[in-house]
Amino acid sequence: MDKKDCLILLRLLPKELQSGVFSELDPDIQEDIIKKLTDIDVKSIISSMHTDDRTELFEETSPEITRKLISLLSFEERKEALEILGYPEDSVGRLMTPDYVAIKEDWTIEKAIKHIRRFGKDAETINIVYVVDDEWHLVDDIPIRRLILAEPTQIVKSIMDEHFISIIAIADQEEAIKLIEKYDLTALPVTDSDKHLLGIVTVDDIIDALREEQTEDLTKYSAIEAAPIGLDFITKIREVPLRKIFRARITWLLALLIMDLVTGGIIKSFEKTIAKYVVLVTFLPVLVDTAGNAGSQSATLVIRALALGTIKMKDWIYLIGREFIVAGALGLIMGLGISITGFVRGGSFLIAQVVVLAMIVNVIIGSLIGVLLPFVFTKFKKDPATASTPLITTLADIIGTAIYLGLAYLILS
Amino acid sequence: MDKKDCLILLRLLPKELQSGVFSELDPDIQEDIIKKLTDIDVKSIISSMHTDDRTELFEETSPEITRKLISLLSFEERKEALEILGYPEDSVGRLMTPDYVAIKEDWTIEKAIKHIRRFGKDAETINIVYVVDDEWHLVDDIPIRRLILAEPTQIVKSIMDEHFISIIAIADQEEAIKLIEKYDLTALPVTDSDKHLLGIVTVDDIIDALREEQTEDLTKYSAIEAAPIGLDFITKIREVPLRKIFRARITWLLALLIMDLVTGGIIKSFEKTIAKYVVLVTFLPVLVDTAGNAGSQSATLVIRALALGTIKMKDWIYLIGREFIVAGALGLIMGLGISITGFVRGGSFLIAQVVVLAMIVNVIIGSLIGVLLPFVFTKFKKDPATASTPLITTLADIIGTAIYLGLAYLILS
Repeated sequence: MDKKDCLILLRLLPKELQSGVFSELDPDIQEDIIKKLTDIDVKSIISSMHTDDRTELFEETSPEITRKLISLLSFEERKEALEILGYPEDSVGRLMTPDYVAIKEDWTIEKAIKHIRRFGKDAETINIVYVVDDEWHLVDDIPIRRLILAEPTQIVKSIMDEHFISIIAIADQEEAIKLIEKYDLTALPVTDSDKHLLGIVTVDDIIDALREEQTEDLTKYSAIEAAPIGLDFITKIREVPLRKIFRARITWLLALLIMDLVTGGIIKSFEKTIAKYVVLVTFLPVLVDTAGNAGSQSATLVIRALALGTIKMKDWIYLIGREFIVAGALGLIMGLGISITGFVRGGSFLIAQVVVLAMIVNVIIGSLIGVLLPFVFTKFKKDPATASTPLITTLADIIGTAIYLGLAYLILS
Repeated sequence: MDKKDCLILLRLLPKELQSGVFSELDPDIQEDIIKKLTDIDVKSIISSMHTDDRTELFEETSPEITRKLISLLSFEERKEALEILGYPEDSVGRLMTPDYVAIKEDWTIEKAIKHIRRFGKDAETINIVYVVDDEWHLVDDIPIRRLILAEPTQIVKSIMDEHFISIIAIADQEEAIKLIEKYDLTALPVTDSDKHLLGIVTVDDIIDALREEQTEDLTKYSAIEAAPIGLDFITKIREVPLRKIFRARITWLLALLIMDLVTGGIIKSFEKTIAKYVVLVTFLPVLVDTAGNAGSQSATLVIRALALGTIKMKDWIYLIGREFIVAGALGLIMGLGISITGFVRGGSFLIAQVVVLAMIVNVIIGSLIGVLLPFVFTKFKKDPATASTPLITTLADIIGTAIYLGLAYLILS
């Protein structure tokens, strides 16, 4: 649908649906619509949006639009919006909504349900209600099912288990994802460091965050920079201008090109050996590629395990040890695989020897690079997924070429 | 914790917690525990497990254990288990649980809530209840919040919107993930093709499925076969035997090695040209690598967009057209990037010409392979992510080498 039709359709919708539909639109369409609607219409829409959707809108539209929008909010709403925008990007605070229902432990179930009936209409989710004390400290969370299954005359305290999972607002969104996943929650309460209840994060936002994370990992893996296009670009890939895709790809391609020139330099320095044994060149691709492939495999396993928290930073020595065994075995098989060709195509036992030896060493070195690099990036506060397959392939090229031609030089001369 | 301690701890837990804790254990630990517990204990645990967790247990344990377990179930439970196991793997039917609460449209809210109080205890989630007619056709879904917010004397029909999202049991789990994501659901009703309500899929299972999908994609991307180790292997990577990791990695490494030998063959056939201009070899890595890197980038974008449903199979021509423009621009920049080195290191204008030309053509061809391959795999009913970075790199090697040396031969002789 083109943007003009969007606008007309949105106006035709009943008031109570407008904000819901508007929340689901792409940020650029939202911005466009805001520009075209009167202030009164905009105010009516953003006032009835859920807080988390509104925060997302503020984050994604241009600063001037954000300023205009904030000016349209009521004092209360403005305070809320500025507070949430004050949390660091990627923090739980940015994902949370203050639209929850809180009850007190000395109420009866009947009073609690009445309270939910009265104040639940605005709440993002009332599948879970939260028990707070007089200072608004979070005391417990109660699934609504438990309230309903209880007798109306019981006291809230009697159905509390005083066991709940919560997270602080400045924590990383990753942490919230892990908690929701681990404990099968539909909502996660967010507190400040003194355990005051600030808001909740709902599972639908977590699923979106998980999808974004997935896209981020995959693009990093293939050396694409998501920054110039935003992480949700895949969902509107048809509309992303080509120059943005160009920008997302060119940085790493150029960086890798420069690294590849090093490989060329290494080859150049062995020019004499190559001129004498031109056949050596025919094994160059298979040797460096296999090292790169083995390295990519081990990097993926390490990156994924780091992301899921299965291995920790301190495990690196243990993993190097394991990798040495697996890569050694893989190297031997690959060496065997290449040996016949090495002999037949190379035409001499010496050449075959160089090729097989280089293969074994290359697979081991490539794999070890793959294991180490994600740890190195993590150490320097970079995402371990920066150890992309193209980067590892290129590093394996440089080192693999040096090892191969070095061995050839030593053995053949 | 070692397996013996697990067993002791599990026995020490109160009965009502045992099945919950047991459900969260790794399948191999579950199997171990089942072997060691008496039939009566096992029966008590599996009888109180949620149906979806139980199905997962049956799926993941060895056939003999599954048979033993099924024999311990009641007639009703056995029927249910066999029915669910009858659905194809990766189908929604396997994920669903029949533990939901259904109500009728002519009931009062009060009667409905009483019904939920009575039958809701076993239900996996009562955040949403389902309205069915007398033939058990799904008529509507009602979030429990709406029931609570309504007046007790109202009729269920009066709060129905007769608008609901459902899925059929034989549909792929991917579809369920997409629906839950798109409509921000916490549970999705599952029907047969006649719209009879069979069960529900809950959001916690979807998050698990999403994580598994993420791992699957990443491993495919780096040419690791997840089959020999299972998709949840990352969560217990420390315990996976090394030979299994070896098996997961060797297949693709060998396949790619064989493909790389083709590249060697191509180089061999240009041996004379190379012997005359040894310096050509120094540009081989940068040329084929850049093609591979560009190809990986475009493959990732296409694979991700296909997975999210942003682009369809029929879009391939459109995407090829776009890619041609972007890759052309990237190729020109890369060609410029290599030109000085080409001239300085190559020592002649002719060599520089070959290198720059080969770079432009290689980047374009590599990118086009990257765009096309995921479509080809989809066409042949393979996961598009099979177009892994190592595979694309290797194909780019073969074609890139042929183009480069071919151009060199034509221009230099």
